[in-house]
Amino acid sequence: MPLNPNLAAVFPPPVMEARRWVAETTFPADRPLLNFSQAAPVAPPPEALRQAMAEKVATDADIHLYGPVLGDTALRAEIAARWSMHYGADIGAGEVAITSGCNQAFCAAVSSLCGPGDAVMVPVPWYFNHKMWLDMSGVGSVLIPCDGAMLPDIEAARTAMTPAVKAILLITPNNPTGAEYPPELMEAFYDLAREHGAALIIDETYRDFHSGSGAPHDLFRRDDWRDTLVHLYSFSKVFRLTGHRVGAIATGAARLAEIEKFLDTVTICPSRVGQFGALYGLRHLDQWVAGERAEILARGRALRETFAARLPGWRILGAGAYFAWVEPPFDIPSDRLARRLVAEQSVLTLPGTMFTPAAAEGRDWGGERALRIAFANADAAGIAVLADRLAAFRP
Amino acid sequence: MPLNPNLAAVFPPPVMEARRWVAETTFPADRPLLNFSQAAPVAPPPEALRQAMAEKVATDADIHLYGPVLGDTALRAEIAARWSMHYGADIGAGEVAITSGCNQAFCAAVSSLCGPGDAVMVPVPWYFNHKMWLDMSGVGSVLIPCDGAMLPDIEAARTAMTPAVKAILLITPNNPTGAEYPPELMEAFYDLAREHGAALIIDETYRDFHSGSGAPHDLFRRDDWRDTLVHLYSFSKVFRLTGHRVGAIATGAARLAEIEKFLDTVTICPSRVGQFGALYGLRHLDQWVAGERAEILARGRALRETFAARLPGWRILGAGAYFAWVEPPFDIPSDRLARRLVAEQSVLTLPGTMFTPAAAEGRDWGGERALRIAFANADAAGIAVLADRLAAFRP
Repeated sequence: MPLNPNLAAVFPPPVMEARRWVAETTFPADRPLLNFSQAAPVAPPPEALRQAMAEKVATDADIHLYGPVLGDTALRAEIAARWSMHYGADIGAGEVAITSGCNQAFCAAVSSLCGPGDAVMVPVPWYFNHKMWLDMSGVGSVLIPCDGAMLPDIEAARTAMTPAVKAILLITPNNPTGAEYPPELMEAFYDLAREHGAALIIDETYRDFHSGSGAPHDLFRRDDWRDTLVHLYSFSKVFRLTGHRVGAIATGAARLAEIEKFLDTVTICPSRVGQFGALYGLRHLDQWVAGERAEILARGRALRETFAARLPGWRILGAGAYFAWVEPPFDIPSDRLARRLVAEQSVLTLPGTMFTPAAAEGRDWGGERALRIAFANADAAGIAVLADRLAAFRP
Repeated sequence: MPLNPNLAAVFPPPVMEARRWVAETTFPADRPLLNFSQAAPVAPPPEALRQAMAEKVATDADIHLYGPVLGDTALRAEIAARWSMHYGADIGAGEVAITSGCNQAFCAAVSSLCGPGDAVMVPVPWYFNHKMWLDMSGVGSVLIPCDGAMLPDIEAARTAMTPAVKAILLITPNNPTGAEYPPELMEAFYDLAREHGAALIIDETYRDFHSGSGAPHDLFRRDDWRDTLVHLYSFSKVFRLTGHRVGAIATGAARLAEIEKFLDTVTICPSRVGQFGALYGLRHLDQWVAGERAEILARGRALRETFAARLPGWRILGAGAYFAWVEPPFDIPSDRLARRLVAEQSVLTLPGTMFTPAAAEGRDWGGERALRIAFANADAAGIAVLADRLAAFRP
């Protein structure tokens, strides 16, 4: 039976690989699994949101039927107004589209930008679903390294730029490193993209947990943002709506007309119930989100302090929003280390190798030495237990 | 700003083009729009289903969070059991995946089968979203004609077969023609695909409205179905769940492992609420579906009878499930005719040209002469008004 060689060559979803490790392990009763692999909430949305959605499902006939391909008008308008305020910019409802999650927003963006032979510039470590889409679509990846603070190297990017590169991709706050990119760095990447007639794709899935409270950059205030910027967002984290699949794209209306063809063909429209949930959240949950943000920022501080106090030699290279990117003080390849931590300490983290090219490909991208710790779902007590177990690990 | 030339070359969603015609027209109060363009229910799901979904949303925390990439275990198992019974076959839960609608099922199937330079064999008229996906993916289309009963021409298919063809696509009951493909014809296409090491993709989105009550084919009973068959289904029509996006694929588990990479990257998982709705429907709505089927079959008969009695010269080439494919007794290109019917008779149908290559491409595929009438949402009275208006049309 025939098989698309591009898809066959794509690595399987890393999260499922990690799930297999857990499934294959029996955890002692006095040392249950601590799961630091999850890049999403594990608790449901707040009660008010769930009740509002339930009422909508029960009483609104229309919510069960197809909506517009680019998303419900009210949600697009609400996002445009909110983003305009947040970024101090002027974003129209016609410059926003809703997608079935932010992964799909990325797929749609790339499909609108890159044909065969084209490429996207991707900082390493990458977010694996991004890399998977590029690989299965036959779009090249021009990889660039990050510095010691896990910020993508603008000089390396300048050097690596080629006419095939149709877009530069930045994720901030970053998955997997947690790094928050400074506005000046984002400006520099914007300028680099623009000089080369490429787009700048910014994935701000974890924006609501940024440690800064204002606009994280001024790129929406550029005169030419509609031609250069493709902004991606997710409602999965902020309102805990992962099971409903709602994301968003903001870019120029001309590109959205192309993206509409992709979305019409791939999903027809995003879940109407999910869209209603996002709209309700934007209109009613600001205060709840502020509490969530404060809690996650506190967890990040707890992680930093606990590591500093209890885990000498462990280096935190990046930490923010949901994630920390850490290096242990011993020389065990991260995929082996991650498996041993599951088996020996009942701790699940993801190895850096899931976010970098294989070591066999030559260059050292740092993945062999690092672990991604998704700490957002662990409170201070959980982080203390993590520290106990990492300290107890005998390399 | 860069643009993927493959996507740029894809025609825009035809349904939106049709919506524009309606938006641009003012309909007289005594002759409101009759919409015969809709390939999906326009009424909501039955009350019991809506209430069950609402309760689930209100009370089940888990329904708001990520589920497995290939779909919820209970739904996969239920489909496997139901399909096994319906087709007299042995289909396992691991041979079923849930997708965010049946369009996505097709995209996933093709992505697993075809790389660059490969092609899919497609009967004309086609379903436009299928053609759009092939075009934007850079996958070729080997087009084959249908006969006078709108059945794909197996001899033409034999002649047109090339090593590049990795799959043959059949839709039955067909969109846009309504034709129900006889089991023998499907067997012949299965054998043709198998001989050439290609897959047979069968889209049975409208299966529940087939005029026959048993299994529409025996292909799931073939020993080697897991290697050759990729079966697509939609819950959008049968339970009126279009706004929730739930479809399904049945094929061998090895292919599903490849499809899992695609689905993980494009949507992560299908809507959990939608999946619950489909499961509830399968478990509780058999009798309601039987009533729906009887009503839609009655509407099909009413259409045939009304055309025979009132519209001399109009030919129904195909009719079944949701659609009829008809030729008027005058020589007006279908895209002009469809627009004039909107303007002059307040009747929206889709022109055959939306389902065939442009006439400029040389060969006559019949689209210039035909209209697709989606009659499933019109009762006998509505069909009578349609006949009045078509009869009143002055070419």
